[in-house]
Amino acid sequence: MLFDLDGTLVDAVYDHVLAWKEALEQKSILLPAWKIHRQIGLSGKSFLPILLREIRRERTPGQIQELEDLHLEIYMRRLPGIRLLPGARELLQRLTEIGIPWAIGTSSEPKASEPLLKQLHVPRSVPVILAKEIPRGKPNPDVFTLGARRLGASLSDSLVIGDSPWDLLAAQRAKALGVGLLCGGYGQCELERAGAYRIYQDPGDLLNHLEELGIRPDGK
Amino acid sequence: MLFDLDGTLVDAVYDHVLAWKEALEQKSILLPAWKIHRQIGLSGKSFLPILLREIRRERTPGQIQELEDLHLEIYMRRLPGIRLLPGARELLQRLTEIGIPWAIGTSSEPKASEPLLKQLHVPRSVPVILAKEIPRGKPNPDVFTLGARRLGASLSDSLVIGDSPWDLLAAQRAKALGVGLLCGGYGQCELERAGAYRIYQDPGDLLNHLEELGIRPDGK
Repeated sequence: MLFDLDGTLVDAVYDHVLAWKEALEQKSILLPAWKIHRQIGLSGKSFLPILLREIRRERTPGQIQELEDLHLEIYMRRLPGIRLLPGARELLQRLTEIGIPWAIGTSSEPKASEPLLKQLHVPRSVPVILAKEIPRGKPNPDVFTLGARRLGASLSDSLVIGDSPWDLLAAQRAKALGVGLLCGGYGQCELERAGAYRIYQDPGDLLNHLEELGIRPDGK
Repeated sequence: MLFDLDGTLVDAVYDHVLAWKEALEQKSILLPAWKIHRQIGLSGKSFLPILLREIRRERTPGQIQELEDLHLEIYMRRLPGIRLLPGARELLQRLTEIGIPWAIGTSSEPKASEPLLKQLHVPRSVPVILAKEIPRGKPNPDVFTLGARRLGASLSDSLVIGDSPWDLLAAQRAKALGVGLLCGGYGQCELERAGAYRIYQDPGDLLNHLEELGIRPDGK
C-alpha cells in the first residue's frame, strides 16, 4: 500500500491552500482559494504555471521558485497546528502488525513532512519517498513507482491511497488500483472520475473496511 | 436573482473553515477541515450539533453559542484579507444596469458581512437579508423567500445563486431554480446532486454566460 501524506494521512490541505494564497498575494497575484485547492497534490512547480497562465500572469522559473520558498515559509508557521487525520496512525500500525508492506510518498519538503511523519510513528524500516528523489511529480507516477520498488513489489500489485485526483491519475497511469479518501476536501465524484477503485472518508474509515480491499484485518 | 454571499460573491469559505477549526480546538474538539467545509453555508447552530453528534461530543445550546462567538472572533481577525470572487462586482453591476432585480441573503453576522457588502458596492436599494431576520437557516429556504418578497417577486420565478449544496437544496424546497458556483470549493457533482440547474465557476463565469439563464446581457 502506497500512501500520499498531506490530505491523506494528515489534515494539511486547507493550510496549504491558505499558505499558497498568502504567498501569491505577497507577490500581488490574486487567486481564489478553491482554484488553489484543486491543484494541491501537485508540486508548486507543476501547478503554478497552469494557474498563472489562466490569469495571464506567467512567471519565470526563478520567480516560481521564489513563490515556492515563500509558500514553504508561511506553511511552516502553520505546521505546529496540523493534526493527523482520524485513524491514520491506527491504520498504519495495523498494516505493520499484519505484515502488509506500505510506504509513503510526498511532494512536500523534508522539513515540512518530517514532523508529521514523526507524529504518525512511521517505523524506520518504512520507505518514505521525498520529492527531491524523483524527477517528475504527480500526476506522473514516479513517486509511487519508487515506493513500490523500495518495497520489492510491482506497482500493478499495489494500492495507491490518496485524497486528490492527482494521486488517482498517477495510480491509473501506473496500472495500480487507486483508493480515494474524502478527507482532503475533494468531492466524491471528483475522485470517482479520476478513476478511484474505492472511496473512504478517511484513514479510520478505510481501516474499518479493510476486507473490501481484499485484506484480512487479522492478517490471516 | 437571489445571491448567497460567502463562497458565492466573496472568497470567505476557507477562512470560515479554519476559523471554525481553531474555535473548536480551543474547546478541545478536534474536527478535520474537510468535515467542517462540507457544512459551511449552514449556520453554526445548525451544523455543530451534527458534527458533534458524529464524534459523540454533544454540547448544550449555551456551549454552541460560545463556539459561535469564538468562531466569529477568530473569523473577524481574518476578514481584512478576504477578497471578492472574480467578476462579483461586475456581475451585480450588470444586473442593476439591465434592470434584473437582485438581493443578497447571508447567514453571516452583520459585522462580518458589512465590510464585504461595502467591497461589493451593493446599492442601498438592494435588499440584504441577514440571519437575524429569519427564523430558520438553510437548507430551509426562509432567507431566499424573504429576499424574493422584498423584490416583489415570487420565489418560483427566481434564480438562487449559491456555492453550497445547502443553497441548492433550499432552492429546490422553494421551487426556485438553483445555480451553483464552484468557487466555494464544492465539487461539480456535489452541486449537481443537490439539484443545480446550471453550474459556473464563479460570478465572472456566470456573467459571461447570462444568456444561458435566459437573460439578455444588454437587458433588451
